[in-house]
Amino acid sequence: MDGILYIQNYLKNNNIDCYIVFTNDDHGSEYVVDHFKARQYLSGFTGSAGTLLITQNDSYLWTDGRYFLQAEKQLTNTHLMKMGEENVPTIYEFIKNLSNYPSVAFDFKLATVSFVNGLLKSVNGVKLINNGEIIDSVWLDRPKMISTKAYLLDDKVAGESYLSKRNRLMDEVSKLNCKNALISSLDDIAWLFNLRGNDIKNNPENYAYALIKEEESIIYMDSNKLDSKLYNTLTELNITIKEYNDVYNDCCFLEGNTLIDTAKTNYLLYTSIKNKVESDIFPTTKMKAIKNNTEIKNIKKAHIIDGVAVVKFMHYLKTNVGKTYLDELSLEQKLLEFRQESKDFLDLSFDTICGYEANGAIVHYSATPETNKEVLNNNLLLVDSGAQYKYGTTDITRTFALGKITKQMKRDYTLVLKSHIALASAIFPKGVNGYGLDMIAREPLFKNYLDYNHGTGHGVGYLLNVHEGPGRIAMRAVTKETLYPFVPGMITSNEPGLYISNCYGIRHENLVLCVEKVKNEYNTFYGFENLTYVPFDLDGIDKSLLTSDEIKWLNKYHDECYKKLSKYLNKNMQKYLLKITRKI
Amino acid sequence: MDGILYIQNYLKNNNIDCYIVFTNDDHGSEYVVDHFKARQYLSGFTGSAGTLLITQNDSYLWTDGRYFLQAEKQLTNTHLMKMGEENVPTIYEFIKNLSNYPSVAFDFKLATVSFVNGLLKSVNGVKLINNGEIIDSVWLDRPKMISTKAYLLDDKVAGESYLSKRNRLMDEVSKLNCKNALISSLDDIAWLFNLRGNDIKNNPENYAYALIKEEESIIYMDSNKLDSKLYNTLTELNITIKEYNDVYNDCCFLEGNTLIDTAKTNYLLYTSIKNKVESDIFPTTKMKAIKNNTEIKNIKKAHIIDGVAVVKFMHYLKTNVGKTYLDELSLEQKLLEFRQESKDFLDLSFDTICGYEANGAIVHYSATPETNKEVLNNNLLLVDSGAQYKYGTTDITRTFALGKITKQMKRDYTLVLKSHIALASAIFPKGVNGYGLDMIAREPLFKNYLDYNHGTGHGVGYLLNVHEGPGRIAMRAVTKETLYPFVPGMITSNEPGLYISNCYGIRHENLVLCVEKVKNEYNTFYGFENLTYVPFDLDGIDKSLLTSDEIKWLNKYHDECYKKLSKYLNKNMQKYLLKITRKI
Repeated sequence: MDGILYIQNYLKNNNIDCYIVFTNDDHGSEYVVDHFKARQYLSGFTGSAGTLLITQNDSYLWTDGRYFLQAEKQLTNTHLMKMGEENVPTIYEFIKNLSNYPSVAFDFKLATVSFVNGLLKSVNGVKLINNGEIIDSVWLDRPKMISTKAYLLDDKVAGESYLSKRNRLMDEVSKLNCKNALISSLDDIAWLFNLRGNDIKNNPENYAYALIKEEESIIYMDSNKLDSKLYNTLTELNITIKEYNDVYNDCCFLEGNTLIDTAKTNYLLYTSIKNKVESDIFPTTKMKAIKNNTEIKNIKKAHIIDGVAVVKFMHYLKTNVGKTYLDELSLEQKLLEFRQESKDFLDLSFDTICGYEANGAIVHYSATPETNKEVLNNNLLLVDSGAQYKYGTTDITRTFALGKITKQMKRDYTLVLKSHIALASAIFPKGVNGYGLDMIAREPLFKNYLDYNHGTGHGVGYLLNVHEGPGRIAMRAVTKETLYPFVPGMITSNEPGLYISNCYGIRHENLVLCVEKVKNEYNTFYGFENLTYVPFDLDGIDKSLLTSDEIKWLNKYHDECYKKLSKYLNKNMQKYLLKITRKI
Repeated sequence: MDGILYIQNYLKNNNIDCYIVFTNDDHGSEYVVDHFKARQYLSGFTGSAGTLLITQNDSYLWTDGRYFLQAEKQLTNTHLMKMGEENVPTIYEFIKNLSNYPSVAFDFKLATVSFVNGLLKSVNGVKLINNGEIIDSVWLDRPKMISTKAYLLDDKVAGESYLSKRNRLMDEVSKLNCKNALISSLDDIAWLFNLRGNDIKNNPENYAYALIKEEESIIYMDSNKLDSKLYNTLTELNITIKEYNDVYNDCCFLEGNTLIDTAKTNYLLYTSIKNKVESDIFPTTKMKAIKNNTEIKNIKKAHIIDGVAVVKFMHYLKTNVGKTYLDELSLEQKLLEFRQESKDFLDLSFDTICGYEANGAIVHYSATPETNKEVLNNNLLLVDSGAQYKYGTTDITRTFALGKITKQMKRDYTLVLKSHIALASAIFPKGVNGYGLDMIAREPLFKNYLDYNHGTGHGVGYLLNVHEGPGRIAMRAVTKETLYPFVPGMITSNEPGLYISNCYGIRHENLVLCVEKVKNEYNTFYGFENLTYVPFDLDGIDKSLLTSDEIKWLNKYHDECYKKLSKYLNKNMQKYLLKITRKI
């Protein structure tokens, strides 16, 4: 029986107006494993954002502009609700019109607090029904939640012990008049306990909850994840291990105030906690963003290893293009193989974006056998990729000029490079946030009446998520992330771009570390230090568009690339690296 | 009898803990007339910011860092409370410690809503007593409130009729579910009714309140301000004139919701209104900021007239310095005289800042006979000044290089000019606010680890206040003003600076108009058009520090200065202008 029909029967039999299927997991994670892909299973739509709503006789899917074309192709009997378009109701407006006091069922574990609060505010007298089990009844071959072995990072790799982190956290917790802290987000848990795992592709984390109390810490996770040695180690640290789902019951009986991260706590857990204090930005999220000296040292090492792989890839690409058959998927594979040459490589940090020609202009492109393009010697190739190493996470984008590219391509390539250099060399006082920095990055493009429709920078974890808060370099919206001031120790990507629809895409991305530069009578000034060392393709540059300061920056950067990478390369590759890092 | 002693007797006799004297007027105006200077009368302190608190046996004055030195000199028996210094309680903390449930008297008409709300929140059980009359009993020779003749701007000067403005206002008022709007701020009232006056030095406005109701508008003002012709004109527009103080009684009996500007409504008026909606930024403030075509045309004319006067001043200064005795006060006077040569000159728009050498480093300097310095031919002179003309308000700062200045001075002069040019030539998309623009302006100084401790831009009225909201280019604080997006029609100052304590100050200020530049597939892009046309002193510039784009900008600007101003100058002055606008 069709899944949607089954749910419609349930709605009719129980006189419920609709059932909602979200895209999230229970932890507000960015990457969602197959077990949670019920929306995709029921609707057929595979995009990473969208909400399915099933009524007694129909079904609807809300998604945003990135996915309109894809959803139109993939949806069969479900109506597409194009978010933001005129005359398309929001999901709240839609529910409001279903009946006078509409009843709405969904899995409370999958709903965000802000969604439910919005629903309660927008729809007078709405009735909420918690039902997650129905998905198991419908989805008979539903993938199990993967449970991998957890492992502990040595303090030499983590740079700070769990106990020290716990102390710092509890200081913040008590400042906010709380006795307990509940943590749902997987990277915060991984950071606090120095624990890693492999439950989620690209994110080296474990499905877990953590409850930090004055007298003990509790981790709720599948106990099979721990071998006895690790179990004992944790116990010695006064960490109690309980079963994953026990968190819901325990949260009902907490004494004193509990600090929660509202954005990451699912609605069922949220309602379980009586006395809660909602953190604006959760203390561990702030702490995790500021990398300690060990982490910084290791991240630098990871970037050298990664840089070596990308330079090998560049050599492979540039020497084979136009001679050998190459396509986006085979190049992705080749890049992976170069990374895998390092014994410390663990995983990619996200699905590689390898977009040739017009595919490069699709910002969140991921090549599939259907879209896979042959890569020829006469356009631009954009490759955005990154990896998890045993001691750090990388994220780099290079755009390669293949063959004789047009004057326009060179101009665009160079303008984006000017933006990249503007941010890389920015100096700014204490207190400046990503909103202000984004102006600096975009101004060279603005001056040419150009812009790009994505942020310029995101935080990056340490052997954790490739996207992490709280800082964000972006200006389309004024949010708590874009208003969060940069401080030394924070890592951000620097990735301006330019996308010419149906033609090509350009993006230049390095990771950079915020550092203190000068403290004087005027202010305390910060700037960025590069972490990524891979040459920018000189074949793409129109030197006449660069200022002397920009040329100086580029030459110095390329000089450093050679110094840092050459010792890991053979003679032949060293010669190649020398060539592609030549002074202009 | 000493004023403070008189008030202390009143406190003792009535068992009140303290009496507070504020610096404001009843309308939240920036410039306060003598009638309202009770704090100065009682304490002796003449600074523009400070709050006096009198207890039964003592007195205290809170002021900020700008005024510590001055207050130390001027206060005799009153304790100086240095705001922001360690171990100095806030005024709230101080009151809290006076007694268990402290009673606090002050003139409710002089208190801001935010002050009182802060007091109520911070001091549990505080009792408030309204007493403004006591100041009249103490201050026997208190200056009367000046009441000048009001006058109406012709629609040809205002560019939009009162009725049209009223309609636009009432549209906004009803969108906010209100029937009435109360306006306290004098420039908003002047703008709405196209009325001007001379009650306040530099601000061509009338002391008044306005109540806009569905059926009529009421202006509360001294009826002697209106001659019979103007009275009839207003009456024909369905505007009722009532006595100034009647507003308090009328506000008690309003029907329906009333929209107020909380920041500008005094506490007595605030509490008079039962059903009020507090506007974030008041509709007239937003509308007033966007200049109409007539205003823009007239403002441009005013800037040419003003530019002619400043060029004459520059000529006078440069040809006489080192030869004739010059000092700050005499130069101020000379500049005033050049401005007065225009028949359309009405007033200065603020007290001229004319600071030579170390005095130039004092940001809010105003020369007095005691501080007045002789101006010699070997340092920098900073002159920040502006005027009210019949058709617009100006505000300009030029820094003059006198004699042979040091290399360091030239470097600093040029770096500030780079900042000025960066903002003047910035291109930015719709939605960008003054926080983002401030980064663009400051980056050339940041790059040299320099900064200045004031905003880069403020709005400017049309024959109104030289400082007006809602936009503000600044980055020290994220406020509703710095987050307010720029839109075409808004005018802002562009005034980066640099201040070397005890040596010299540099500031380069023009007024600029926000205009639309390009609308394309990427975004809608805005930029600035110059309003001010007066050459920057080429003697201050180190050309080697400028990029070719900056040199191009400067040469073009100087070329325009010559084209716009020369026809208003005699042959000799034209020759001078040609010289000081030469290409570099």
